[in-house]
Amino acid sequence: MFQQDDLPKILRKEVIASLHDGIVRIHNRRIYPGRDEYMYVSSVQEIADAMQQMVTQGGGILRLSLVALLFIAEQMAEGKIPLSQQEFIRLLSLIKNARRTNTTSHRILDSLTSSLSLEGAFSNAELLLSLSRSKVEEVEATFDTIYDSMSDLGADLILDGEGIFTTCFAEHTFILSLLKAHRSGKDLHVYVPETRPYLQGARLTAPSLQELGIPVTLISDAMPAHLIQKGAVNRYMSAADTVCMDGSAANKVGTLTNAVLCSHYHLPFHLFAVSPDQSKLSMEDIEIEYRDPEELLTFRGERISAVGVHGIYPAFDTIPPSLITSIITPRGVLRPQDIRMKYVPGEGL
Amino acid sequence: MFQQDDLPKILRKEVIASLHDGIVRIHNRRIYPGRDEYMYVSSVQEIADAMQQMVTQGGGILRLSLVALLFIAEQMAEGKIPLSQQEFIRLLSLIKNARRTNTTSHRILDSLTSSLSLEGAFSNAELLLSLSRSKVEEVEATFDTIYDSMSDLGADLILDGEGIFTTCFAEHTFILSLLKAHRSGKDLHVYVPETRPYLQGARLTAPSLQELGIPVTLISDAMPAHLIQKGAVNRYMSAADTVCMDGSAANKVGTLTNAVLCSHYHLPFHLFAVSPDQSKLSMEDIEIEYRDPEELLTFRGERISAVGVHGIYPAFDTIPPSLITSIITPRGVLRPQDIRMKYVPGEGL
Repeated sequence: MFQQDDLPKILRKEVIASLHDGIVRIHNRRIYPGRDEYMYVSSVQEIADAMQQMVTQGGGILRLSLVALLFIAEQMAEGKIPLSQQEFIRLLSLIKNARRTNTTSHRILDSLTSSLSLEGAFSNAELLLSLSRSKVEEVEATFDTIYDSMSDLGADLILDGEGIFTTCFAEHTFILSLLKAHRSGKDLHVYVPETRPYLQGARLTAPSLQELGIPVTLISDAMPAHLIQKGAVNRYMSAADTVCMDGSAANKVGTLTNAVLCSHYHLPFHLFAVSPDQSKLSMEDIEIEYRDPEELLTFRGERISAVGVHGIYPAFDTIPPSLITSIITPRGVLRPQDIRMKYVPGEGL
Repeated sequence: MFQQDDLPKILRKEVIASLHDGIVRIHNRRIYPGRDEYMYVSSVQEIADAMQQMVTQGGGILRLSLVALLFIAEQMAEGKIPLSQQEFIRLLSLIKNARRTNTTSHRILDSLTSSLSLEGAFSNAELLLSLSRSKVEEVEATFDTIYDSMSDLGADLILDGEGIFTTCFAEHTFILSLLKAHRSGKDLHVYVPETRPYLQGARLTAPSLQELGIPVTLISDAMPAHLIQKGAVNRYMSAADTVCMDGSAANKVGTLTNAVLCSHYHLPFHLFAVSPDQSKLSMEDIEIEYRDPEELLTFRGERISAVGVHGIYPAFDTIPPSLITSIITPRGVLRPQDIRMKYVPGEGL
């Protein structure tokens, strides 16, 4: 089992988000690695705003959602927010609505709320707080176990001497797979597309791999085909934001392009999915988030095109099952068509 | 026939590069459109350095190469550089070596030098200058005719209601095709990938189309697949830097990805080529320029990743003939396999 210290700094729980004395501390991914700073907030609305503005993102959303739940429970225990299941649900909906495409954290929050309700936590503020703490700890321990087993599977897929490419920042499952493959003595090289406009690849993935001593080269989002044609890249791995019951997936915009490239050049295309979404039958059910085009049209406040030029910023792609080689889940490495057999709608995580 | 005023400002000859009183004025594409400024240089080495540093680029290289030839002839006429064919060739080789992948300007300079030599220009400085002026004018008039006829062909390919995508800044042939299709009443919309890291799409293509009143939307380089999947994009057009005799091509990195996408989604993929390179039999003969990775790793001087992260910057892709629907040339809209029949090695432009 991996330890928090095995992870790059930005994936450690206490770094991503934490709660101290009524203040939520969030590691600011927007400015990392240029600046290594935290944002401090003290209301549910501010937590939701920080999510919407991508102060943390990707897998960081789950950790921050859990910290938000603890924050609400603590505020209710201290009498700062009236104790009420309805209010608890309303406040969590602010958190859930901040980001719409990755639904894992939504389902975890719903499941925790049901379980707190069943155990009578909404009639006793002290019980609410202590149960929230123990349940969040359980969820996180479960996720750590999942990350550990999925990254064992991921590491096994990587062959000695391979070049691997990715999209965005695929966090625990991807990073730990590479780390385990690397530590087992496999020679590997990771080509990381910068991932415009937020630059998750340049700012989060490449620095994290460098921190772990894994060979990494930064490229632009348009370069994978060039490297595939040259034979430098042999395998794709990323973590899906959503996987549907038909084996289709949603992930950062750019993933579809890389899936088409893998199909054309006959390279394996893998997605990690900690929790396929049993409520989504196919990619038509996925709600794609469109973000403010200004994020694309400006770079650190400077306009990159002429004044008045319009832009569009779909934040996610949907990838049809036909382009996916395998989906790495807690229940094994599955072909897309096997998702439906391994995951029964309504059964939870 | 189009007029210089029909073109967006940055494609007008006098804007791209001009020669006045021994000073070469070059429109600075590096900072456009944020700043609309010129660079002034007064030696062949400085002209070559400006090219290498991409003060102008793409089709601007041809215009600046011709201005450089006039500059050398003028300097020889004024006795500032000794009159000598050998020196003339040596100085032009500095210009040719500044950028290696697009060979059109190289062939034009070689052909002009041969023709000047045949007419005895290297024994008479006044003759050298007057012949250089008339021959450059002829070449430019020829190119204008070529741009005009090729853009008639390009405009005809575009269907009413289409979404068109591209790569980089495909200059005269592409821009004029869109302009003619637009003016003929066809409803079209151009999706322009920003083209990292130099941002030719964001800084040159999108502003030029906006200036001409053609509907344009800026996207990131990773978004075309998303728009194709949605049905918003139906056709690809760009201008190749090099086309070989087997119908393969070189163009800005990212073009190969877009070619694979078109193949996967059965969309037409067109490249304009003013002058297929008769000396190159296949894409193995194309010299791909690798540029300084710092251009990728920094944005306007600010580092985008962690200190110490490596990058790679292949500036061009090679595209196999199997992925190209047609190549629009002065000799018609050709299938890749027809290039060899229409262009005989050694015959010139």
